[in-house]
Amino acid sequence: MGNREETAMQSREQPGWSPEPVAPGPDPHDVPMSWFNIVPNLPAPLPPARDPEDARGSRLEVQQRIRLDAMRAQDAATDSFLPIPERVRQELAGLGRPTPLLRARALEEYLDTPARIYLKREDVLPTGSFKLNSAVTQAYFAARQGVGTLVTETGAGQWGHAVAWAARRFGLHAIVFWAGVSARQKPGRHTVIEMLGAQVHQSPSELTAPGKALLRDGRHVLGSLGTAIGEAISYAADHPETRYISGSNLPHVLAHQTVIGQEVKTQLDALGETPDTLIACVGGGSNLGGLMGPFLADKAERGDGLLLLGAESAAAPRLTRGEWRYDHADPEGVTPLTKSYTLGRDYELPDTHVGGLRQHSGSSVVGVLRQQGLLDAVAYEEGEAFDTGRVVLRTEGMLIAPESCHAVRAAIEQAVRARETGVAKTIVACVSGNGALDLDGYTARFGGRAAHA
Amino acid sequence: MGNREETAMQSREQPGWSPEPVAPGPDPHDVPMSWFNIVPNLPAPLPPARDPEDARGSRLEVQQRIRLDAMRAQDAATDSFLPIPERVRQELAGLGRPTPLLRARALEEYLDTPARIYLKREDVLPTGSFKLNSAVTQAYFAARQGVGTLVTETGAGQWGHAVAWAARRFGLHAIVFWAGVSARQKPGRHTVIEMLGAQVHQSPSELTAPGKALLRDGRHVLGSLGTAIGEAISYAADHPETRYISGSNLPHVLAHQTVIGQEVKTQLDALGETPDTLIACVGGGSNLGGLMGPFLADKAERGDGLLLLGAESAAAPRLTRGEWRYDHADPEGVTPLTKSYTLGRDYELPDTHVGGLRQHSGSSVVGVLRQQGLLDAVAYEEGEAFDTGRVVLRTEGMLIAPESCHAVRAAIEQAVRARETGVAKTIVACVSGNGALDLDGYTARFGGRAAHA
Repeated sequence: MGNREETAMQSREQPGWSPEPVAPGPDPHDVPMSWFNIVPNLPAPLPPARDPEDARGSRLEVQQRIRLDAMRAQDAATDSFLPIPERVRQELAGLGRPTPLLRARALEEYLDTPARIYLKREDVLPTGSFKLNSAVTQAYFAARQGVGTLVTETGAGQWGHAVAWAARRFGLHAIVFWAGVSARQKPGRHTVIEMLGAQVHQSPSELTAPGKALLRDGRHVLGSLGTAIGEAISYAADHPETRYISGSNLPHVLAHQTVIGQEVKTQLDALGETPDTLIACVGGGSNLGGLMGPFLADKAERGDGLLLLGAESAAAPRLTRGEWRYDHADPEGVTPLTKSYTLGRDYELPDTHVGGLRQHSGSSVVGVLRQQGLLDAVAYEEGEAFDTGRVVLRTEGMLIAPESCHAVRAAIEQAVRARETGVAKTIVACVSGNGALDLDGYTARFGGRAAHA
Repeated sequence: MGNREETAMQSREQPGWSPEPVAPGPDPHDVPMSWFNIVPNLPAPLPPARDPEDARGSRLEVQQRIRLDAMRAQDAATDSFLPIPERVRQELAGLGRPTPLLRARALEEYLDTPARIYLKREDVLPTGSFKLNSAVTQAYFAARQGVGTLVTETGAGQWGHAVAWAARRFGLHAIVFWAGVSARQKPGRHTVIEMLGAQVHQSPSELTAPGKALLRDGRHVLGSLGTAIGEAISYAADHPETRYISGSNLPHVLAHQTVIGQEVKTQLDALGETPDTLIACVGGGSNLGGLMGPFLADKAERGDGLLLLGAESAAAPRLTRGEWRYDHADPEGVTPLTKSYTLGRDYELPDTHVGGLRQHSGSSVVGVLRQQGLLDAVAYEEGEAFDTGRVVLRTEGMLIAPESCHAVRAAIEQAVRARETGVAKTIVACVSGNGALDLDGYTARFGGRAAHA
């Protein structure tokens, strides 16, 4: 047999970007028409990013230079709704949006709870996580701007994976700085990102000035989202033909993720349900913002009747133990100063398997929600997260991402409380990602002895 | 934080089986009412299994003893439709049936084909493969019969994974004999099966007489589905409190999988489509039978107008190069003799990453379809399969199982032919499983050098 179709398959270059699909695409009628813009709907103004008072030049000016035009415009937008381009709606529909909202009946049975637990299944998107929602959007705008190469950072690898696919979809090249500790834990995901044609560098690396400085001084050598952010920005600044994109923290990313919350609203309405609790894991804050943003008006109306709950890693307990102040998002200070709950940029994050939550700071938007008392927070140890993953596997059959385990852990605690109080609650947790590419973490905890548990 | 909810979570035993759910379950209205029974709809009688003429006792009698009552009854059934119990329909609905039928537009664009390629997404089921359809069904019947322990074999691990979950769902214990070469390739899936509480043994093992004989003689030491079948049967025969179940080959398993083909029919009807080509990968033959069974009447009517195509591994080319004759399904002759396309039970299967297709023989039902000229077949080398997986990843974003790559490879060849002839075809391929737990195979082919391809 050999390569009989190899030529046929390879003779077609990946199609470049075209403003509208050549053939009628998937029907986007169930995809929201607009993104919800959280910033103008916050109960307090978003503290603006600013430059530090040092001699190293304006970080804000660098951001202006390395960012996509459309992303800068979205971050500055004051409208509550930002229209989603038709092509992006078609892409999202083609990727399987709306994603299912699963009633986790087997988990409810196991907990013997009167609560109704709903899981928003972002894990079923093709690359296995919610990150695809923003990746495909940013790749679309990059292609429209005529950009050829995107550079970005990734923590758990979900964003890097999503960008690698989205870049290919729109005929772009992608360069990914990946928090070293996570990259080394996940050879399978590494393979996938490379199969997609993206270039991967473990951070800290020798490719950039901030990476070299960290390696030279022996600081943050495990790598983190912060070290990768610093390197990606530095790389973009040194390579004018590239543009830097981010999958977390910033207003436009949170806006792109509001397709999640808007779908949940529609899906709950169709079931005649009103949520009492909305839960998301929180690293930078984009799946949290995406789920909860569209419910901010409900929160304003219902107060304590609607609990918004962020679940973070006890290895990076920003919202539960951090300070609300200005800080850099990267240890070397390549980023502008932004105000958020932070552990300090010198905080050395421990080695964990929850790469998506390993950040010393986070989104200003999420920070305002927390600071204004709208958002509650809880932190879990890694072992608690993986134990939760096993419960979900054993009941619902799904293998969920370690990050998502934090959200479901919080949902279980709320459901147990409902059992104790006898008050049925409607709980919605976002399953931000699939865990099949994070199995080394599960294996480290359960491998070889799980049968005896 | 510690174990504050651990007690609460562990205090609930996994619920045992109850004939009807305690609360109204998911709405099964989109799940078929009946399984389609292929056997009475074959164009020729199914050659009955029979005993060999040796002194080692009746294998058929052993089968009678170790099988579930309901499975024996289903294998003997002559009705064209077998009603699906309401509880099973609710379970299937809860697992996400009907699964999506994806129009693979990005793949079509890449191939520049006028063909419409549809992929049946069995990979989105919670355990990542179609095997769940039969596993949940057999576990249901086992629980109803009062059986406490199920023993089975698995090749790629998908069936073992599905049985492990389904057994837990119905409060049963599961023992899985896993073809050794596949088990060793897949530490992640091994972890998952053990996390589900199942007991896993690599085959050949020292636990059973046929396993010991193979190890002693240095035959089939890599293991195969055949060696695992022999051991699982032997184990069940030696442990009267267990029952043996199979996830492949047999009429009842193919019937359980016809939910796939029935859904495809409904989904295509809703799109106004008539299929020209139906494709499935083929190991034992259950996803093939499940997809194609419900279309047998169409095939009888349309003849060459409807192509049924089985895609097998060139490492185990039964349908393309085997003989149509009686043979044992395991190398030691623990199974009865069944008539199928076989390479001979002494054929030592090479080491490959497509564990689900590594069989020396297969289903008699599939054999009759082939022998009667209804089923065409094509075989692919492992490298061709993984290359196809990369194309699917790069276009549709999905990471599909190596076994499923064979089916999509055949779909691509048909689509390329459509481009060459200018005749638009409607092609449906079954994506039997997700590839995220098979990444070692992809890594072996693409790891560390994929970026340069």
